[in-house]
Amino acid sequence: MDRLIVTYLYSGENPKEIADLIRVEQTIEFPFDLAPSWIQEEVVGKIESIISVSEGIDVGEKPEHKIVISYNPDVIGGELTQLINVLWGNVSLFPKIKIIDFLLPDSFLSKFKGPRFGVPGLRRMFKAENRPLVTTALKPMGSDNSTLAKMAKTIASAGFDLIKDDHSLANQPWALWKDRVKAVAEAIGEAGTHCRYAPSLNLPADQILEAAYIAKDFGAGALLILPGISGFDALRTLAEDDQLALPIQAHPAALGSLVTSADCGISHGLVFGRLMRLAGADISIFPNFGGRFSFEESQCLEIAESARNEMANMRQMWIAPAGGMSLDRIPEMVKFYGVDTALLIGGALSRGDLFENSKRMVEKAHSYR
Amino acid sequence: MDRLIVTYLYSGENPKEIADLIRVEQTIEFPFDLAPSWIQEEVVGKIESIISVSEGIDVGEKPEHKIVISYNPDVIGGELTQLINVLWGNVSLFPKIKIIDFLLPDSFLSKFKGPRFGVPGLRRMFKAENRPLVTTALKPMGSDNSTLAKMAKTIASAGFDLIKDDHSLANQPWALWKDRVKAVAEAIGEAGTHCRYAPSLNLPADQILEAAYIAKDFGAGALLILPGISGFDALRTLAEDDQLALPIQAHPAALGSLVTSADCGISHGLVFGRLMRLAGADISIFPNFGGRFSFEESQCLEIAESARNEMANMRQMWIAPAGGMSLDRIPEMVKFYGVDTALLIGGALSRGDLFENSKRMVEKAHSYR
Repeated sequence: MDRLIVTYLYSGENPKEIADLIRVEQTIEFPFDLAPSWIQEEVVGKIESIISVSEGIDVGEKPEHKIVISYNPDVIGGELTQLINVLWGNVSLFPKIKIIDFLLPDSFLSKFKGPRFGVPGLRRMFKAENRPLVTTALKPMGSDNSTLAKMAKTIASAGFDLIKDDHSLANQPWALWKDRVKAVAEAIGEAGTHCRYAPSLNLPADQILEAAYIAKDFGAGALLILPGISGFDALRTLAEDDQLALPIQAHPAALGSLVTSADCGISHGLVFGRLMRLAGADISIFPNFGGRFSFEESQCLEIAESARNEMANMRQMWIAPAGGMSLDRIPEMVKFYGVDTALLIGGALSRGDLFENSKRMVEKAHSYR
Repeated sequence: MDRLIVTYLYSGENPKEIADLIRVEQTIEFPFDLAPSWIQEEVVGKIESIISVSEGIDVGEKPEHKIVISYNPDVIGGELTQLINVLWGNVSLFPKIKIIDFLLPDSFLSKFKGPRFGVPGLRRMFKAENRPLVTTALKPMGSDNSTLAKMAKTIASAGFDLIKDDHSLANQPWALWKDRVKAVAEAIGEAGTHCRYAPSLNLPADQILEAAYIAKDFGAGALLILPGISGFDALRTLAEDDQLALPIQAHPAALGSLVTSADCGISHGLVFGRLMRLAGADISIFPNFGGRFSFEESQCLEIAESARNEMANMRQMWIAPAGGMSLDRIPEMVKFYGVDTALLIGGALSRGDLFENSKRMVEKAHSYR
């Protein structure tokens, strides 16, 4: 079926009424009875099924229903922005509704390229045949350019694949964007290893693309973007740019509201897996379970699956489960997520000797082959 | 105090621990003890107060705490994107935390212009000295260009101030963006009234600015943007563009996840009031209470207050409480929100005679003077 198929979890009464509300709200947003009959038939979404999931609920809890609605692919046209609008535009303003699955029409998918490099591309780029990637973030904010540059050179010398700006580094007086990117790119270049630098593009909307080119000119070999702030389509724009052609890491900042609530939002795998991959992220960063954040094991696994399962001809995407990780957790993480994982350890590398810790991390990652 | 001051509502135990987590997470994201002491002092956020709000909670409910943290203005630099990152970046991924207030440092605020027109500007533009604005949306999706254009001309002839594209209209085969904008702009021009057209800019990130110029060339006199999809900074970019200099309506699509949960997200007034105004919206659309959506009276009032209260030298912003409104509700809405309200009635105008209904709405609005 070449339609957009969305599965909503709804907690409450009268699921049929809510399903009718959603299928109209996400399309014509107009009194159904006033729409011409062909629009009622072809433009408004269709209820495919409503399944009640009321087993095992406690007294006083509201029953849950899985509502499946399909949409004419013409409703989403060929643009990611309108896909997000049909998926989540107005329905985001209803309470107690969560999107737990969506399937894209092939005609829509075929318009997207997904990750330019993805798992196979970065394996070739970093000569990492069968091991996890070794990545980190430059921090803390407040450090000046020469401190950050020195840090980057030390880590690059230890054999890292990728060093990104911490997502908190923007255009602050301690290390202005342009000066920082130049200094760090040069320092990593001096290390003479295969390491690439991903400066953060958390910049004003009208500066992102130009900044990406400036970064590339300075020698940055990758990019970091924050789709929760800049929009998923800003990620797509960068990923599809054949002149840039750089690997892209996507950071989860500000996307938490989509997933932290149990009964509203969009599920973890769809946000950090499917949408990120569709938009072209090569590496999707998210908070690993057992770190400082709230994600559960099953939610993290859902992300890994969406990053890797069949999705038209799109390349598999790297996942970077992060947030307070340490070297000790590497074996457990690789066991859980497999080797198609971009290990991302930040602050913990600075506890003790940065070079020694970095080398240890590289060795651990290279022990998988 | 020239600092960014954020008030978080936290539901749970150990508020001091959480406050320490937040002030580090939103700044250095690095082990506190490893940071140089000047960074600990000057870059990491400072806990200003923690107040427990445990009165009146039911047995079994978690206690709530108001945590106030202030940040050095250099942490946010001068950019809206980094402000959003410091406000909500990683903390969005923590559960049970809601931002219920923030105050911006004057040094930051002074870099922003806010609404180009706002309440006084659109009053002059539409010769609406002391009445609500009269606005609507073109729909339903599926209609062809000539149908939409005819509809627009009818409504413009009835004396409306503003007609926007329905936010669902993107670039669909039934009415491709360019053709639609041209046809509708021309039709409204033919009406020969003061009515302005706001085409939707829910378009790919790299096309928004160009599309705004194309729309202006076609004769569109306003713009509609969806910051939940395109990013708040895309709104700012348009609002600050002196060549464009068009009034901007901002639509709430996809922003619901920020506000629908009681214990996570950002409160209504901050999202649809303060952030929209900071980013430069002239009119902020949100779902009114008593419509199809979930907003409560107090939340709507919070939005109205944030749109209008003192905020450096920024103009007051119009609010457009919408979503299933009808003509009958106008007196009640004006009583509740005051005359600085952009009345927005969509589908209900099509029930019966569009021209007659439109005239009635204009008359009702013009009865306030």
